[in-house]
Amino acid sequence: MSENDIYGGSLALLTDLYQLTMAAGYWKAGVAEREAVFHLTFRRPPFAGGYAIAAGIATALDYLKRFRFTADDVAYLATLVDGEGKPLFEPGFLAYLRELRFTCTVDAVPEGAVVFAHEPLLRVRGPILQAQLVETPLLTLINYQTLIATKASRIAQVAKGPVLEFGLRRAQGVDGGVSASRAAYIGGCAATSNVLAGKLLGIPVRGTHAHSWVMFHADELAAFRTYAEALPGNCTFLVDTYDTLEGVRNAITVGKELRARGHELAGIRLDSGDLADLSIQARALLDAGGFPHAKIVASNDLDEHLIQAIQDQGARIDVWGVGTKLVTAFDQPALGGVYKLGACRDEHGHWRDVIKLSEQPLKISNPGVLQVRRLRRGDHYVGDVIYDSEHGCHAPLQLHDIDDPLKLVLQLVHDHAEDLLTTIMDRGQAAALPDLEAARARAARDLAMLSARTKRFLNPQPYPVGLDSHVHQRKQQLIASARSRHA
Amino acid sequence: MSENDIYGGSLALLTDLYQLTMAAGYWKAGVAEREAVFHLTFRRPPFAGGYAIAAGIATALDYLKRFRFTADDVAYLATLVDGEGKPLFEPGFLAYLRELRFTCTVDAVPEGAVVFAHEPLLRVRGPILQAQLVETPLLTLINYQTLIATKASRIAQVAKGPVLEFGLRRAQGVDGGVSASRAAYIGGCAATSNVLAGKLLGIPVRGTHAHSWVMFHADELAAFRTYAEALPGNCTFLVDTYDTLEGVRNAITVGKELRARGHELAGIRLDSGDLADLSIQARALLDAGGFPHAKIVASNDLDEHLIQAIQDQGARIDVWGVGTKLVTAFDQPALGGVYKLGACRDEHGHWRDVIKLSEQPLKISNPGVLQVRRLRRGDHYVGDVIYDSEHGCHAPLQLHDIDDPLKLVLQLVHDHAEDLLTTIMDRGQAAALPDLEAARARAARDLAMLSARTKRFLNPQPYPVGLDSHVHQRKQQLIASARSRHA
Repeated sequence: MSENDIYGGSLALLTDLYQLTMAAGYWKAGVAEREAVFHLTFRRPPFAGGYAIAAGIATALDYLKRFRFTADDVAYLATLVDGEGKPLFEPGFLAYLRELRFTCTVDAVPEGAVVFAHEPLLRVRGPILQAQLVETPLLTLINYQTLIATKASRIAQVAKGPVLEFGLRRAQGVDGGVSASRAAYIGGCAATSNVLAGKLLGIPVRGTHAHSWVMFHADELAAFRTYAEALPGNCTFLVDTYDTLEGVRNAITVGKELRARGHELAGIRLDSGDLADLSIQARALLDAGGFPHAKIVASNDLDEHLIQAIQDQGARIDVWGVGTKLVTAFDQPALGGVYKLGACRDEHGHWRDVIKLSEQPLKISNPGVLQVRRLRRGDHYVGDVIYDSEHGCHAPLQLHDIDDPLKLVLQLVHDHAEDLLTTIMDRGQAAALPDLEAARARAARDLAMLSARTKRFLNPQPYPVGLDSHVHQRKQQLIASARSRHA
Repeated sequence: MSENDIYGGSLALLTDLYQLTMAAGYWKAGVAEREAVFHLTFRRPPFAGGYAIAAGIATALDYLKRFRFTADDVAYLATLVDGEGKPLFEPGFLAYLRELRFTCTVDAVPEGAVVFAHEPLLRVRGPILQAQLVETPLLTLINYQTLIATKASRIAQVAKGPVLEFGLRRAQGVDGGVSASRAAYIGGCAATSNVLAGKLLGIPVRGTHAHSWVMFHADELAAFRTYAEALPGNCTFLVDTYDTLEGVRNAITVGKELRARGHELAGIRLDSGDLADLSIQARALLDAGGFPHAKIVASNDLDEHLIQAIQDQGARIDVWGVGTKLVTAFDQPALGGVYKLGACRDEHGHWRDVIKLSEQPLKISNPGVLQVRRLRRGDHYVGDVIYDSEHGCHAPLQLHDIDDPLKLVLQLVHDHAEDLLTTIMDRGQAAALPDLEAARARAARDLAMLSARTKRFLNPQPYPVGLDSHVHQRKQQLIASARSRHA
């Protein structure tokens, strides 16, 4: 199953209106079928970090497989009017949409791969009308999951012990919950509290009880006992409803009763207060009480920085429950990915590379039909070259920096090279993608191959990514030509 | 239609696993049907502001109407195992879930109402098992939409001219897009770019073209001309692909051609650079070119603070397109709402008020079956009293501060009082709610009745909200009793 299975109706209208007005324009001008190439990229890694983890690829592919305008969709579009009160769309265009099938070829990086600024995560090639229409949903699906997978990878890297994703209640809508669970799992979380994500995606689910369970009962001891009666194999007691250490003592009391019945206390959960200090005291109580294997789970507005700080204080926390700050990517809640035209056929059928200008070098788009070659030396990634797959990637490999076009990396010693983009949809026919576990494994493997200098949080060293000489020269030519035209 | 119509499958599992394990516990203990009351509240207004706009109420009601465990859901739950490898849930409990229908009574504030910290936005009363199960989805739906409606209201208050919501591509998943459009509209946005939100919810949709439209064509003039040919009544040209002021001149050229054909240039859009300065220059060019009525639309990472600053610089911007910072609530991407037990029946059928303790007064829950009475003097709201509807609201009205329990507001001169919570679902039967336009109108009316001192962004004056004497005294008793028990 896919998280898109929660959607019953058509999602073809999940797009910006301007994609449809442009589509009407291409159709009217008779150029709807002309071939074009778009690249989905981001301009800076999130969280002031050095990398991102690509996610949402399979979700996007699933979206494209289902892409179709229903009679309902077209009937709605027929109701829209322009600034003059006339129908915004012609009947002929709406009939065209009704029959439209997605026939583009889509290449993408493997889900779970580490990726860097300016690299195409996805490349869509086909009729301009179609490739343009899917811009918005592709950005929505990939921007968000990539952001969350990256956040999860940062948290999982720091945490000693498994990280559980507990974010649903603070998520940005239903899908901000379900797809967050998916992306967090790719990034390294061990499980989620979100049962729907468990059902749809096979992610392990975890959870025990809330404060209200304790409040409902006459006292905490009664609450723990009733729970242990009903679910003896799932006892991780939340101990902070009234007084945390008193709660730990009650958990120990009920743990002993459980043991007498042939079960074992799984652990306790701390959800407020000084987590470092309380975990140390709780650990001592549990050990002294005969429960050295009972786990201490901690939650309460955690992120990678707070987990690091709590661990540095000698905390005895075994499992981390992370919610709000993970699923909303609290410190940077948008990746800011873009989807830019790289090249299109002219009226004679020749490829024409294009760019968008900007005063900021990092906002100028890269021209061509782009591919990424990743270079490895032994078990370490050493750099990525962005090249034009129509032209090929030729020695000597040189990396022309994108943010600083005068900077050049001449030599990249490597013993292995891999092209990152592979075809996931061939003229509308979807390939079978690796499953969620494979994406999660890819993220773990890629992170292991990435230098600690690039993974660190404070001033990470930029990973070498650049244009090959051919793309670099084309880009400089196009910039010079566009600027001279508008000078 | 509702935005929930995009969901095809069951959403009963859109909850945290612990809601289900607690449900199993209530069922096993034979107390599943015992009556309880939960309140959904937040502890601080978002964005360091003085208020929030309640949203997501109708979405939540729609969710509750559809609440049902399918055979699929139960089959999935049957696969889960506990820490001992045994089935987590008993067959009898799963059979109970399969037959379960939602029979609680739900009271809520009107959608679009201004609301304040500690006030119940929603109150759920009914069998504890059911009322507990829906905690997570209610929080997900209401937290997020309330956050976004509040953000939108801040932006719309500042902006001179309509605000268009353009956030879908940076939204947190599909639903983070669709429900964001809904909430932004309630909060005061005039339209959205999100066509699916238009179709499902009837929100006006707006949009013209992207940079790629210009890049696809041989030059900008050709791009504008082709667009004007296809959609003459919808011409707002994006002018910054190569050079903004050159783009304005091209728009004027095509505007004149349009006029010759009997149409009118709607406007231009600026998407980069110094928006204040460029808008002033663009206005001068448009006026001189004979287009004094062409609108200038601006976009590019805008929020309320940036709009304010740009306006303060004398910008000539007529329409604001706001995306990322609105739909992700960038500066505070989670509201942090909670859902707390207020009271439950004991084994003898008597109401028992409950609280959750915390070291921080604002994190201690409020006991009882709570209602909010809003006091008005003329056209101004003067204060809100939280009281127990089982006990009634008696004179003299006193407001006991919640964050600072020693603080007391004695006198609230008012000539009108309104209870905010009304029944939207009566023992499982949903009432008809006001539509989206009514919610939007309510927000506008309520904001007009709220003091400017409370609406300002910097150090807003807190709006008076407090507990009445009865709830205050009950709360202090319960705190004292709980603390003495655990001392």
